[in-house]
Amino acid sequence: MNNDNYWASRRTIRKYTSQPVSDLVIDSIIQLASQAPTTGNMQLYSVVVTKSPELLEALRPTHFNQPASQAPVLLTFCADLNRFSQWCKLSDAQPGFDNFQSFISALLDTTIFAQQFTTIAEQQGLGVCYLGTTTYNAPDIARILNLPKGVIPVVTLSLGYPDETGIISDRLPIYAIRHSETYHTPTDNEIQQLYAPKEALPENQKFVAENNKKTLAQVFTDVRYTKANNEHFSKVSLDFLRLNNLIP
Amino acid sequence: MNNDNYWASRRTIRKYTSQPVSDLVIDSIIQLASQAPTTGNMQLYSVVVTKSPELLEALRPTHFNQPASQAPVLLTFCADLNRFSQWCKLSDAQPGFDNFQSFISALLDTTIFAQQFTTIAEQQGLGVCYLGTTTYNAPDIARILNLPKGVIPVVTLSLGYPDETGIISDRLPIYAIRHSETYHTPTDNEIQQLYAPKEALPENQKFVAENNKKTLAQVFTDVRYTKANNEHFSKVSLDFLRLNNLIP
Repeated sequence: MNNDNYWASRRTIRKYTSQPVSDLVIDSIIQLASQAPTTGNMQLYSVVVTKSPELLEALRPTHFNQPASQAPVLLTFCADLNRFSQWCKLSDAQPGFDNFQSFISALLDTTIFAQQFTTIAEQQGLGVCYLGTTTYNAPDIARILNLPKGVIPVVTLSLGYPDETGIISDRLPIYAIRHSETYHTPTDNEIQQLYAPKEALPENQKFVAENNKKTLAQVFTDVRYTKANNEHFSKVSLDFLRLNNLIP
Repeated sequence: MNNDNYWASRRTIRKYTSQPVSDLVIDSIIQLASQAPTTGNMQLYSVVVTKSPELLEALRPTHFNQPASQAPVLLTFCADLNRFSQWCKLSDAQPGFDNFQSFISALLDTTIFAQQFTTIAEQQGLGVCYLGTTTYNAPDIARILNLPKGVIPVVTLSLGYPDETGIISDRLPIYAIRHSETYHTPTDNEIQQLYAPKEALPENQKFVAENNKKTLAQVFTDVRYTKANNEHFSKVSLDFLRLNNLIP
């Protein structure tokens, strides 16, 4: 496949065949993905590869049993300040990574690594979906996966062989996201122009109707990402970071 | 180039020729990268492309004038809760994104997008380096780039045509980062075995000697990422998130 075609036409896959994904395949992707950039070459991440039916059964509710969580493999990518600190202690060095800045570095490392994994897996014909719910239920995930202190789950990928073709998602015009030299705060008129094509898509109009809403934005604010839920899970996340000594 | 070769042999580039990178090239990469996964297709990010000598001059000290910051282009990738909220308000919808969970979603979106940009740029022969210092001086960067409330700089990429070949960085063995089914906390002996190859590398031994340290880990804890600096910049980051109403 021409690579430019891949970038423009990649698809998230949420439905998988029952064909297992071998450790050899998964490990070879992890190996390649680990060459992705990382803060000071510290690799402040770990990935837990879960395939056992019992553990998958335990993990799925933490992702609200969304369809993609039915995949034969779940990969939980974790910000990991534990391993590096343990190495420091064994090397006559006093680690100072129990703080928010170190968590942010680890979170960036982890996400970069997860995205590199995603691209390599997709280019090999596997299907991948981000489960954006990982930080919502971090305490439960940490318990199920035996995560020690300083290891924070941040991203989960579901993985398997595709059982659907998937769709190419619509995206905002580049003018919405790219700013020249400094940030240009869009005018109300510009915002309306930038989002008009998205609002006009038949699948989005159907989405609005199905949810009995008046506008597409209301589907996001009233159904998918409500203020009450966002605030509830913010508290869960912040409490969990506090428990891990990563914020005061 | 065989793609497997690219993944295994990618290199960070910190030195660039003076050849400018055209808007056409940058925009086409941004366009392709925007097909990367994003939370609920909200695209909670923006990227500011800075090329003007005056603005580059202003930005470089916020990245501690590190060599890569001398690039002809700096791209500041920002978690952007401003644009989406503005659209909601114009669409008769009440946005509830001024909280930590929404910031984390935006941070993941932004980092995934930045990493997709990196891979595409590298595959097109451009040189890229992450400046991991962006969150350290977020308030200064926000001022220089006129970022409105709700727009948080999280990642900066320096970009240009390579003026060095770069090196393939050493990485930990896969057994250090991949856990099977649940997390396995390494024993002290395992940690020593996992880090021994890294400690034995001539360039790392040179690094230890140059810094007058006894162990490689001490270079990280006493020179590069000290507890005092980590704690100072944690406070800066948390204060900035508070100022943006993203944490209580």
